[in-house]
Amino acid sequence: MSSSDIFIGETIGTAILILLGGGVCAAVTLKASKARNAGWLAITFGWGFAVLTAVYTSAPLSGAHLNPAVTLALALKKNGIEWSQVPVYWGGQMLGAMIGAALVWVAYYGQFHAHLTDKEIVGDPAAKGAKAKSVEAREAGAGPVLGIFSTGPEIRNAVQNIATEVLGTVVLVLAVLTQGLNGEGKGLGTLGALITAFVVVSIGLSLGGPTGYAINPARDLGPRIVHALLPLPNKGGSDWGYAWIPVVAPLIGAAAAAGIYNVAFV
Amino acid sequence: MSSSDIFIGETIGTAILILLGGGVCAAVTLKASKARNAGWLAITFGWGFAVLTAVYTSAPLSGAHLNPAVTLALALKKNGIEWSQVPVYWGGQMLGAMIGAALVWVAYYGQFHAHLTDKEIVGDPAAKGAKAKSVEAREAGAGPVLGIFSTGPEIRNAVQNIATEVLGTVVLVLAVLTQGLNGEGKGLGTLGALITAFVVVSIGLSLGGPTGYAINPARDLGPRIVHALLPLPNKGGSDWGYAWIPVVAPLIGAAAAAGIYNVAFV
Amino acid sequence: MSSSDIFIGETIGTAILILLGGGVCAAVTLKASKARNAGWLAITFGWGFAVLTAVYTSAPLSGAHLNPAVTLALALKKNGIEWSQVPVYWGGQMLGAMIGAALVWVAYYGQFHAHLTDKEIVGDPAAKGAKAKSVEAREAGAGPVLGIFSTGPEIRNAVQNIATEVLGTVVLVLAVLTQGLNGEGKGLGTLGALITAFVVVSIGLSLGGPTGYAINPARDLGPRIVHALLPLPNKGGSDWGYAWIPVVAPLIGAAAAAGIYNVAFV
Amino acid sequence: MSSSDIFIGETIGTAILILLGGGVCAAVTLKASKARNAGWLAITFGWGFAVLTAVYTSAPLSGAHLNPAVTLALALKKNGIEWSQVPVYWGGQMLGAMIGAALVWVAYYGQFHAHLTDKEIVGDPAAKGAKAKSVEAREAGAGPVLGIFSTGPEIRNAVQNIATEVLGTVVLVLAVLTQGLNGEGKGLGTLGALITAFVVVSIGLSLGGPTGYAINPARDLGPRIVHALLPLPNKGGSDWGYAWIPVVAPLIGAAAAAGIYNVAFV
Repeated sequence: MSSSDIFIGETIGTAILILLGGGVCAAVTLKASKARNAGWLAITFGWGFAVLTAVYTSAPLSGAHLNPAVTLALALKKNGIEWSQVPVYWGGQMLGAMIGAALVWVAYYGQFHAHLTDKEIVGDPAAKGAKAKSVEAREAGAGPVLGIFSTGPEIRNAVQNIATEVLGTVVLVLAVLTQGLNGEGKGLGTLGALITAFVVVSIGLSLGGPTGYAINPARDLGPRIVHALLPLPNKGGSDWGYAWIPVVAPLIGAAAAAGIYNVAFV
Repeated sequence: MSSSDIFIGETIGTAILILLGGGVCAAVTLKASKARNAGWLAITFGWGFAVLTAVYTSAPLSGAHLNPAVTLALALKKNGIEWSQVPVYWGGQMLGAMIGAALVWVAYYGQFHAHLTDKEIVGDPAAKGAKAKSVEAREAGAGPVLGIFSTGPEIRNAVQNIATEVLGTVVLVLAVLTQGLNGEGKGLGTLGALITAFVVVSIGLSLGGPTGYAINPARDLGPRIVHALLPLPNKGGSDWGYAWIPVVAPLIGAAAAAGIYNVAFV
Repeated sequence: MSSSDIFIGETIGTAILILLGGGVCAAVTLKASKARNAGWLAITFGWGFAVLTAVYTSAPLSGAHLNPAVTLALALKKNGIEWSQVPVYWGGQMLGAMIGAALVWVAYYGQFHAHLTDKEIVGDPAAKGAKAKSVEAREAGAGPVLGIFSTGPEIRNAVQNIATEVLGTVVLVLAVLTQGLNGEGKGLGTLGALITAFVVVSIGLSLGGPTGYAINPARDLGPRIVHALLPLPNKGGSDWGYAWIPVVAPLIGAAAAAGIYNVAFV
Repeated sequence: MSSSDIFIGETIGTAILILLGGGVCAAVTLKASKARNAGWLAITFGWGFAVLTAVYTSAPLSGAHLNPAVTLALALKKNGIEWSQVPVYWGGQMLGAMIGAALVWVAYYGQFHAHLTDKEIVGDPAAKGAKAKSVEAREAGAGPVLGIFSTGPEIRNAVQNIATEVLGTVVLVLAVLTQGLNGEGKGLGTLGALITAFVVVSIGLSLGGPTGYAINPARDLGPRIVHALLPLPNKGGSDWGYAWIPVVAPLIGAAAAAGIYNVAFV
């Protein structure tokens, strides 16, 4: 794969991932959406099938990492990818994540506006952020639609939050790394994409409760930057105090999974 | 594939698509249905598996486009289908969509009647259409069961509505176009049909909130015509003012996806 | 396949089908079940995965028809099975369906008793059957747990009820018949079983609203006989007046699908 | 496969199984979890995809039994595994199940604490265990979070509880044993893992109502031991009076399924 194919594939794939993944959060959260209050199962399947669609579409170009943690693990893996490719992957992933988050805003433009100008939802100016998911999120300055862009913890505890994200990423990355041993052959294209999608649904259903399962630095940081930049009314803060955890923890998890793989599976 | 196989395959396939897709909307909407109020997840999986069933059944005859936007993209694609086949595909798709919508009416005949003669649902004659999904839909003249046939926006804004439908169609068509690169081989028959189905669930969950994801001109226009023709009591208007958007926007999206594909993937 | 393999395979497979399919209805309906009120999506996925499990398990022995309508269609199909095998298939299917229904009773023994002796549910003796799903079902003598065994219409209209069951069966049987054309190869064993399962979920979500989608004479008649025989307290009637429809209509649908297949696909 | 590969594979795989399976129960049960009250469908899909992820990840090392009952059946099966391997499998499964249960506690640390110190949930000290799922569970001493670790019956009746668990395990094991006949080839790695996952969803939806479907001795006993050991406040009892049933019944079911397989399928 050429560097330009990698960069374009990761950009397109991660843009689709975040358009669909952020999209389901918008669909379930925002006023005047047909999917409002469709529930946690809708969110977890929505993210899982976002992974399926994004992986399937970008695999022919870049192999569909779509996640800096996956790229790191594939570089750490014995006989893995070249380290020189890592920045190309990471660059495409960050750019794609930001494009995807902006496209969620385009697709739900009227819904964002209706939601963020509804007094019952955002309250008066003195109470901005009042409808953020938890008291702790509110105190941390997370705005009422930040959850459409980035993850946040229900209980703010750096050690536990890191542990949960590490565990989720270990599971994800082990499933990706063992794909080659399960005879999937060339990349993630077909059945492997489907199984990866359901693994992501699994992580969401089972480990998403405490932090909202970032398990992917680009998926969290890219949209958070876009949240900070977008001209949304009453949007509240971007909770930068939490932003480092969904970046660092998935990278730790990826390294741990690569270590397990190199020791136990090869 | 002969023209008659294409026409028959697209007619059968699109009829099944709309019978099952319109069927799940009827099942969740209408009075005296066991599935009433089953929710958005039921609707999105219902449409996804409608695609699976329709594609699987018609792929041996016509390759299972079942969507004028998909046919357009496959004609615009480098080394795509012959332009002379396009009208054959489109004709079968429109005929099939109308047959399917009529069959929904047959399958839910008593439910339609019970629903549309229930005073709590349709109100008195002066308030016809009072239970259409949103205030804007009501003001636009959309009747209380139009949503079983055609899509409509929660917020009526042509620019945003077009943008949302274009984005959904780009995702759908990119997934269809990359299928050949993922080694699916002959048409959409097997695993490709399953993955396409989940891509459609994904688009529904993630991008269906604002407009109800037509992403297919025949899926929207064919049933809308049938809604206008059927002898349903108190059915209200067919919202012709919106009808052009789910026709034009998916075609724009398909052309955009074919352009992306021709530039980036080939 | 020998006749004994066919008979044993169909008996085991249909017993598993009804154990799991009736089981999900019991799980969602009965008091003191962890799945109580889990909803229509649970029922439709439950039946779909019941088909998957039953087909996957019995396909190596009998090819996994598990449905007299499917057997009829495969006999009517050009180059289909021998007519002499039809009674062997049908016999195994009916025996298996009755065994499966009895096993549902075993698995939910205490739940049946708790449910049927709860005064809030079954009322006083003069009001037996008061909690059958609809007024029409109650007037027809359908008891409060009959829906765990057999199907019944929300609106009692023989013409519509037959039409809905015919349409559902046409869709099911077309999907089964086109399997050979989609390169599934030997029987329904693997990917074909999965796709058939999702087709059944689709029929349930989209066409199950009016009648509860029997689409299989053995699935309805076998458990109805068991309902009539089991020593359940306050069980109410078995609604024999409706029993012929879910037997006759699926056979009509199967013949229609075989006709479509023989004309259009071969 | 070497004994060390088997032991490591089963340990890793069963740890992932219980981390994800226990995780979804924690996610749906505990206070301050984003998935709280997500419902029975979330639990059954959560366990099913837990099986998928665990099987997929460990199959290359150990063949992914992850269940002492499956191991027993594969030893009883004609031409099955060596009996000398059975203790290696069982040891890895028990160790993995305990590790997985401990990891659930790590991932949901703050949620466990918030839940078990909430007066509305656990009441005052005199009423410990008051929020266990059923009256019978409370009387048996089952604490308010035991259901995250181990199964328990809604109606306490040893004969029925055993029957339900035996039936569920027969279905599971028959599906595993017939895999070889369905041409899956090498182990459970790919499509077989997906089908097994949906079979487990099926058992959960259809047979999980009465006892919560242990169908796996290690899945129930390992986490129950961890529940007894963990320093959780107000955790209540571990219901040891029930603990033998989800150990013995799955082994009976596995033997029964192996018998059916050896007689009917080989």
